Amino acid sequence: MAGSIYGTVFRITTWGESHGKALGVVIDGCPAGLELEEGDIQLYLDRRKPGVTRIATPRKEADAVEIMSGVFEGRTTGTPISLMVRNTSQISGDYSEIASCYRPGHADYTFDRKYGFRDYRGGGRSSGRETVGRVAAGAIACKILKKLGVTVCAYTRSIGPVEADLSEFDRQAILETPTAMPDRKADAAAVAYLESVRRDTDSVGGCMECLVEGIPSGIGDPVFEKLDANLAKAIMSIGAVKAVEIGDGHEVSERRGSENNDGFRMEEEKTVKASNHAGGILGGISDGDSIVVRAYVKPTPSIFRTQQTVSGSGENVEINIKGRHDPVIVPRAVVVMECMTALTVLDSMMLNLSARMTYLTSFYGSESK
Amino acid sequence: MAGSIYGTVFRITTWGESHGKALGVVIDGCPAGLELEEGDIQLYLDRRKPGVTRIATPRKEADAVEIMSGVFEGRTTGTPISLMVRNTSQISGDYSEIASCYRPGHADYTFDRKYGFRDYRGGGRSSGRETVGRVAAGAIACKILKKLGVTVCAYTRSIGPVEADLSEFDRQAILETPTAMPDRKADAAAVAYLESVRRDTDSVGGCMECLVEGIPSGIGDPVFEKLDANLAKAIMSIGAVKAVEIGDGHEVSERRGSENNDGFRMEEEKTVKASNHAGGILGGISDGDSIVVRAYVKPTPSIFRTQQTVSGSGENVEINIKGRHDPVIVPRAVVVMECMTALTVLDSMMLNLSARMTYLTSFYGSESK
Amino acid sequence: MAGSIYGTVFRITTWGESHGKALGVVIDGCPAGLELEEGDIQLYLDRRKPGVTRIATPRKEADAVEIMSGVFEGRTTGTPISLMVRNTSQISGDYSEIASCYRPGHADYTFDRKYGFRDYRGGGRSSGRETVGRVAAGAIACKILKKLGVTVCAYTRSIGPVEADLSEFDRQAILETPTAMPDRKADAAAVAYLESVRRDTDSVGGCMECLVEGIPSGIGDPVFEKLDANLAKAIMSIGAVKAVEIGDGHEVSERRGSENNDGFRMEEEKTVKASNHAGGILGGISDGDSIVVRAYVKPTPSIFRTQQTVSGSGENVEINIKGRHDPVIVPRAVVVMECMTALTVLDSMMLNLSARMTYLTSFYGSESK
Amino acid sequence: MAGSIYGTVFRITTWGESHGKALGVVIDGCPAGLELEEGDIQLYLDRRKPGVTRIATPRKEADAVEIMSGVFEGRTTGTPISLMVRNTSQISGDYSEIASCYRPGHADYTFDRKYGFRDYRGGGRSSGRETVGRVAAGAIACKILKKLGVTVCAYTRSIGPVEADLSEFDRQAILETPTAMPDRKADAAAVAYLESVRRDTDSVGGCMECLVEGIPSGIGDPVFEKLDANLAKAIMSIGAVKAVEIGDGHEVSERRGSENNDGFRMEEEKTVKASNHAGGILGGISDGDSIVVRAYVKPTPSIFRTQQTVSGSGENVEINIKGRHDPVIVPRAVVVMECMTALTVLDSMMLNLSARMTYLTSFYGSESK
Repeated sequence: MAGSIYGTVFRITTWGESHGKALGVVIDGCPAGLELEEGDIQLYLDRRKPGVTRIATPRKEADAVEIMSGVFEGRTTGTPISLMVRNTSQISGDYSEIASCYRPGHADYTFDRKYGFRDYRGGGRSSGRETVGRVAAGAIACKILKKLGVTVCAYTRSIGPVEADLSEFDRQAILETPTAMPDRKADAAAVAYLESVRRDTDSVGGCMECLVEGIPSGIGDPVFEKLDANLAKAIMSIGAVKAVEIGDGHEVSERRGSENNDGFRMEEEKTVKASNHAGGILGGISDGDSIVVRAYVKPTPSIFRTQQTVSGSGENVEINIKGRHDPVIVPRAVVVMECMTALTVLDSMMLNLSARMTYLTSFYGSESK
Repeated sequence: MAGSIYGTVFRITTWGESHGKALGVVIDGCPAGLELEEGDIQLYLDRRKPGVTRIATPRKEADAVEIMSGVFEGRTTGTPISLMVRNTSQISGDYSEIASCYRPGHADYTFDRKYGFRDYRGGGRSSGRETVGRVAAGAIACKILKKLGVTVCAYTRSIGPVEADLSEFDRQAILETPTAMPDRKADAAAVAYLESVRRDTDSVGGCMECLVEGIPSGIGDPVFEKLDANLAKAIMSIGAVKAVEIGDGHEVSERRGSENNDGFRMEEEKTVKASNHAGGILGGISDGDSIVVRAYVKPTPSIFRTQQTVSGSGENVEINIKGRHDPVIVPRAVVVMECMTALTVLDSMMLNLSARMTYLTSFYGSESK
Repeated sequence: MAGSIYGTVFRITTWGESHGKALGVVIDGCPAGLELEEGDIQLYLDRRKPGVTRIATPRKEADAVEIMSGVFEGRTTGTPISLMVRNTSQISGDYSEIASCYRPGHADYTFDRKYGFRDYRGGGRSSGRETVGRVAAGAIACKILKKLGVTVCAYTRSIGPVEADLSEFDRQAILETPTAMPDRKADAAAVAYLESVRRDTDSVGGCMECLVEGIPSGIGDPVFEKLDANLAKAIMSIGAVKAVEIGDGHEVSERRGSENNDGFRMEEEKTVKASNHAGGILGGISDGDSIVVRAYVKPTPSIFRTQQTVSGSGENVEINIKGRHDPVIVPRAVVVMECMTALTVLDSMMLNLSARMTYLTSFYGSESK
Repeated sequence: MAGSIYGTVFRITTWGESHGKALGVVIDGCPAGLELEEGDIQLYLDRRKPGVTRIATPRKEADAVEIMSGVFEGRTTGTPISLMVRNTSQISGDYSEIASCYRPGHADYTFDRKYGFRDYRGGGRSSGRETVGRVAAGAIACKILKKLGVTVCAYTRSIGPVEADLSEFDRQAILETPTAMPDRKADAAAVAYLESVRRDTDSVGGCMECLVEGIPSGIGDPVFEKLDANLAKAIMSIGAVKAVEIGDGHEVSERRGSENNDGFRMEEEKTVKASNHAGGILGGISDGDSIVVRAYVKPTPSIFRTQQTVSGSGENVEINIKGRHDPVIVPRAVVVMECMTALTVLDSMMLNLSARMTYLTSFYGSESK
């Protein structure tokens, strides 16, 4: 179990390193008959591209996706969809220093301890570039969910001390601002703040959030495969995420039951909740309300200061990281969060198809037999 | 995939409802040759027992465990270990009202939506009693980990506004206080606080934390099977948990990189970190430091007040929950967190045995062949 | 991965040893709303009971099943169904000799090599009694399949040289004859033959076959999860099975393509095959015809003759097996084959529900959204 | 679960169609530190190449493999190894006729029934070319097994009525003869026989066998994950295989116990069996003897005769298959059988590392802690 396979029936296998030939993903279990072309996927890959503004690293990464299998005459065939993105602009010479010592906050040390050695070029498999495969697969999951009436939308909630005001949610701003905030004013403030962080040769953390709207009730399974448990795994598996919350999250620990319970009531012949502290999930199963997931992301560990560390041969050394690094991880991680959420929700919805005998008998039409 | 199976090589399957005949778990993949007797497991089950103090519900639940298979002459045989706990004191008459309407904050509504109907007696499978199976299996995982030099220890960090002072960590107090806090002073304050909550016919949330000490570096896998991702799933799968954190958790979002990075240094010929903001995991793999996991738990949804809700037949109704319910969930969930953490860590350690060619060749001794 | 879990979405976990307290199975993923009572399961367990006739061992095994969870008011709830059968008549004193040496043809030696020691009482987990859990779970799978219009029927094809004549298939005879043959004449001949085998203090092998009728086309998945591949695993996992065939099986190796191809033709507006050499599966996917699976079973390894073997301490010794053993395994294995086939087919049918986008959109009704 | 993922800890995901851009495989869970270069894999891919002799189809398929990830400085890193083979000589124009009707003996009809449409070019995903990914991954498994002292060797046993004489096993002949038989005389006879089959515009079946030598005892798991059960699945998943046997296979059904039991005896302080009817596996676990697996393969379904079939629109039609097709499948399937066997055995050996507490404690060295 090396860890690069995700999902139960909609299963993805990602591969590739920061400075290898290419990165990619194989999707096994995608339903047949979905219209799919490279543009559907490119749209999402472009959202994780750097270089759009000054806050992101100016490396050029074209990240053009190629569909290698599983699509015929414009539609998915039900067999594995292989997607590949070639690495074009990686220069291996940049990373010679980190070959011999461990960058604080990175996985250099732990990869060495696990495997005995590591691909040190740009972080190898532990690089943020690993997410290319997740996003390519997630784009397909998002497209399917849209057809099922479910939309998934992630955005930046805060960068350091600068918080987006969600009361006037500007969905377009997520795609257009360098910070991926749904609030253009907060975006401007965050960009200015990041400039000062960069001048300090430092970096900063942030918070991102994801909404799942239109999901029917009844999705998810009890006990270990709770929908929120699977979302927690999916989101925590994104590099640099250190906390995951559902609904009101850590704030519930100081809450009273009388405040925190969401009462039910009938509204136009539908059961709804008067509030959504629960974040759309009760007992691990969706309640029909919007699902709210939140993730807290640590500051970029690569900073342009002298740091204390040790070498692979066990000596105390100083390290000065070179290259180009974003002062904050969140804006580029937002689309990854959206994709991991979509993959998780879709898988649960596909598994739900056999939850009741009546679903089976109506599908196989056998009551009449 | 109904959700009651957990783990990849050390796999458990739990079963049983609040008011059924019994609850249990089957452990498949437990290594052969472990000394095991019922007392090893009873010790952990007793920690989730209610009725010890006034803060917990006074129902009598003996929860005596019986080993049904997999142990021969006092040792595990490598084949499935079946553990069973009979339900002795459940009276089904108590729960007639919740059969017909949905308790706010509970899974009644979502189970109905998923399955078309539900076992309404005491919450059925979504009851806290479901954790009996987790704890019984976790007791075995803890015993194995101890033999491998790893200890797992969970405790209450806060109840409502009352926080334990961890600077003078009193490990014995966790087992002896009604709140499972490692601080007897805070425990007393919390008990007093809970009395006032109960008088208000209300409930309150809290925070629990788990330490994994002695775990070697190199445990966990990259990308989707990161150790922290699996811990997040394990802990979020415990009923009422709404947030999971690793290391400094949500606080990193306002942190600078220069503060948050843990520098490495040599200490007695060993690589150590100068601090542990990361909580013992880098890039999803253990770094040899203690692992720190934190969970935020919502207030008990069963409160003794009139609440607004709807009936199964779609009418707005008022509900008054009867029975006996703890005003806080955390103290009894602490041992569940400890067990889920142990199950996750052990599974990762077992999977790690084939991470390198040298491990395989030394085990199968074939270089000489 | 100890091996006692089977299935992807309809998952079963079996447990228990020949001479332990009990044996059982947990079914996780059974759809909600199925009427289920103990009698449904007992029917199948009774078919694997010995003692019906002289050819089977006269040990009394009542094998009364108890539903421990997952059924409420007579219907499955969608949560784990735990089934248990107590061992009532096992006397541990019978098996002292095999504790110290390895019976030829049994798993004593290999269990010792794998686990370092073994539960030697009656074969422990490698005893035929292990199949109690499979049959209990399979009974439920059969019941569900029947509701979907699919029937599964296994029977004895031959015992030693005595073959059933399938041209006048007598379905009732399978349940009523001691050999489980669908041919009463062959049954009588086989019983006489088995008497002579027993007088020779010997045993004999046989062949069993299973038909799946009414299965729709399109079930199964390409490449590794072919329906025939999964059937092969399911059936080969039954103790003593040494060969598994689909359709015409090993005979195809001497066949010409022109003889072996099944031509298609239209019949009453339905596509049918002119013959069924393929056994109902093409490219791993059901073609709508009956599925035919065959298994060849070795002779009972326990024979009442002196055999050469070695002891656990590494000395050449002679062994004389005591106890009561059937001279042929097949008749009691027939119901196990039926159950393993049903479990496999049902799992594939449940997984098939998400094979096409149109299935998803029609289930979630979202084209209109 | 679309079916293109295989293995539990050494996991492979294959992708690609007959006439797509490329085919490939991702191996996740390969131990770190294995020396690996493209030549190691090419060696195996070349064995499944056609065009070597007259009996195989003369299409040119270069099948040059490219390592896309997971190898750094000549050694595996422990992260996913992505292998790709470009399709170079496929001309899509060849296959227009089969777009509109169902070839007998092929998966055209069942793919249509499952997915609603299919990639009809050359069989798409159900083509024999799908095995490119299996063989590329299997080459790595074979290399690892060799380092562990285990060799896997498959060969043709018979083609139609022509059987290889195994008494003078010529291992080199397997690689050098067009039939992959370990007997040059039988090879010549088989080639002549195939010429006559081709003149008859017909095809023929055959039998292949695989030996696993040097495997230690104790590999495999009881009940559902028996080593022979997993081998049966692995081999039955190869297109055109209709029967799988272990050891003496279907012949045991007419055998007496006294003939079929393999007695144990001590030989140079080692426990050995006096015979190997069991084929190296007892109770699903390897006994230290050679493992013997056999597979029976149907005749090539593509024959150059007019056949009766139906069209996609439901009319009775005649089909005349064009193109180039081997008159027998076995010789090119032999390396696939070798690879599937190797993948299965390696996975079991990796899982076996945690079978005993003493393995864990000695690896983690903690008894001293």
